Amino acid sequence: MTFQAQILTLYPEMFPGPLGVSLAGKALGQDKWACTAINPRDFTEDKHRSVDDTPAGGGAGMVLRADIITKAVDHAIQQQPSAPIFALTPRGTPITQRRIREVAGGPGITLICGRFEGFDERLFEARPQIEQVSVGDIILSGGEIAAMMLLDACIRLLPGVMGASSSGDDESFEQGLLEYPHYTRPNDWEGRLIPEVLRSGDHAKIEAWRKQRAEDDTRSRRPDLWERYIAARDKSASGARRENEKENGA
Amino acid sequence: MTFQAQILTLYPEMFPGPLGVSLAGKALGQDKWACTAINPRDFTEDKHRSVDDTPAGGGAGMVLRADIITKAVDHAIQQQPSAPIFALTPRGTPITQRRIREVAGGPGITLICGRFEGFDERLFEARPQIEQVSVGDIILSGGEIAAMMLLDACIRLLPGVMGASSSGDDESFEQGLLEYPHYTRPNDWEGRLIPEVLRSGDHAKIEAWRKQRAEDDTRSRRPDLWERYIAARDKSASGARRENEKENGA
Repeated sequence: MTFQAQILTLYPEMFPGPLGVSLAGKALGQDKWACTAINPRDFTEDKHRSVDDTPAGGGAGMVLRADIITKAVDHAIQQQPSAPIFALTPRGTPITQRRIREVAGGPGITLICGRFEGFDERLFEARPQIEQVSVGDIILSGGEIAAMMLLDACIRLLPGVMGASSSGDDESFEQGLLEYPHYTRPNDWEGRLIPEVLRSGDHAKIEAWRKQRAEDDTRSRRPDLWERYIAARDKSASGARRENEKENGA
Repeated sequence: MTFQAQILTLYPEMFPGPLGVSLAGKALGQDKWACTAINPRDFTEDKHRSVDDTPAGGGAGMVLRADIITKAVDHAIQQQPSAPIFALTPRGTPITQRRIREVAGGPGITLICGRFEGFDERLFEARPQIEQVSVGDIILSGGEIAAMMLLDACIRLLPGVMGASSSGDDESFEQGLLEYPHYTRPNDWEGRLIPEVLRSGDHAKIEAWRKQRAEDDTRSRRPDLWERYIAARDKSASGARRENEKENGA
């Protein structure tokens, strides 16, 4: 089955771009995914093919018109009614690896790329199935590179793309933690050695060391993730305790 | 002055890619920025030109070798000693709009793109000036698209790229809040009207409405940002109160 990506963009020539190279490019060549660009300009009826207008209430820049963008969105929905629809916008909810996994398990995705000052808000009021997502707290010149990022994250999870040996379960965010640090040969590099435990061959010790480093690094680098991880862990521990007490008739 | 981007990547053909189009592409044509790709493979000495090896301690995938990557990094530092160096990795600190502004105000940037399972950790121990940054809590097949995202965010802030009228001060994250929603013509679209205040011509009212919506949307969509915003606001308010008390001799 081919994962179908539809991309609403004023710059269709940007796609597949970097996704035509390397892992994603190989998967594209094997029909594991496909992408179609939909240009909102094709849904205009004036001779200037204009998709934007000045902001109501004043201010700099231009706003993408709800009437035009919605026509393009409705076309995309018709093409692929069961695929989730994401609009890339800094006003959106931060995308998570969990949501990426859900999307990668489905038939495809429709991605709406903003430009200029953004979308007329009525687009989201009229089509509430659009998920507004953000990919980091920085401002881009448009949604295209953010869309590529989401697509890349989905593509690597499609069956057969990474190979069975790299399911990615250990990776950052999959367990609510950052991944542990990696090392490889040479063992002695400029006097810096690979941590001894990793060369011990003792798998239980290696696993314990990696868990500890994943926890330590998450706590120091990402207090936000750490707090959520601890809350989830405590909750599941107290749940297990309750289960235990029930079994023991307590 | 041209903002110089150096990109360490195993896929130099990905650049400038989408950054060769639209706003960034136009700025590239005007020499407002330039990019040079540095391929770590050019710093290998074996006939296979190998840059990676298996992870110490076992596990799936391959790890980028510290010895090879460091040679490429040292070359980049020599080319541009005063530019900040970022490595794109999910283990990094989330990039902020504030840091982007700082970088865009400087001479350029060196971006190190990971692939496979990531870098040998000793790279970061040996070159502590490398900032490990992340662009969202999802896993990509490599750092290239993340690097494009950072670059795009910098390029739009370079002098003359957006034009004076769009300094971007109102935008999401610049004031610690999400941006307010936008509207544009038509006024009546499928029975949905532009909020009346935006058509009032009363600039003070419009500004108050926008501030309120920015706060409301930040609180409901991004409780994490909202908490930080409130903490900063309370801190500066109590600072102002102390100043006031001092002036009044209290």
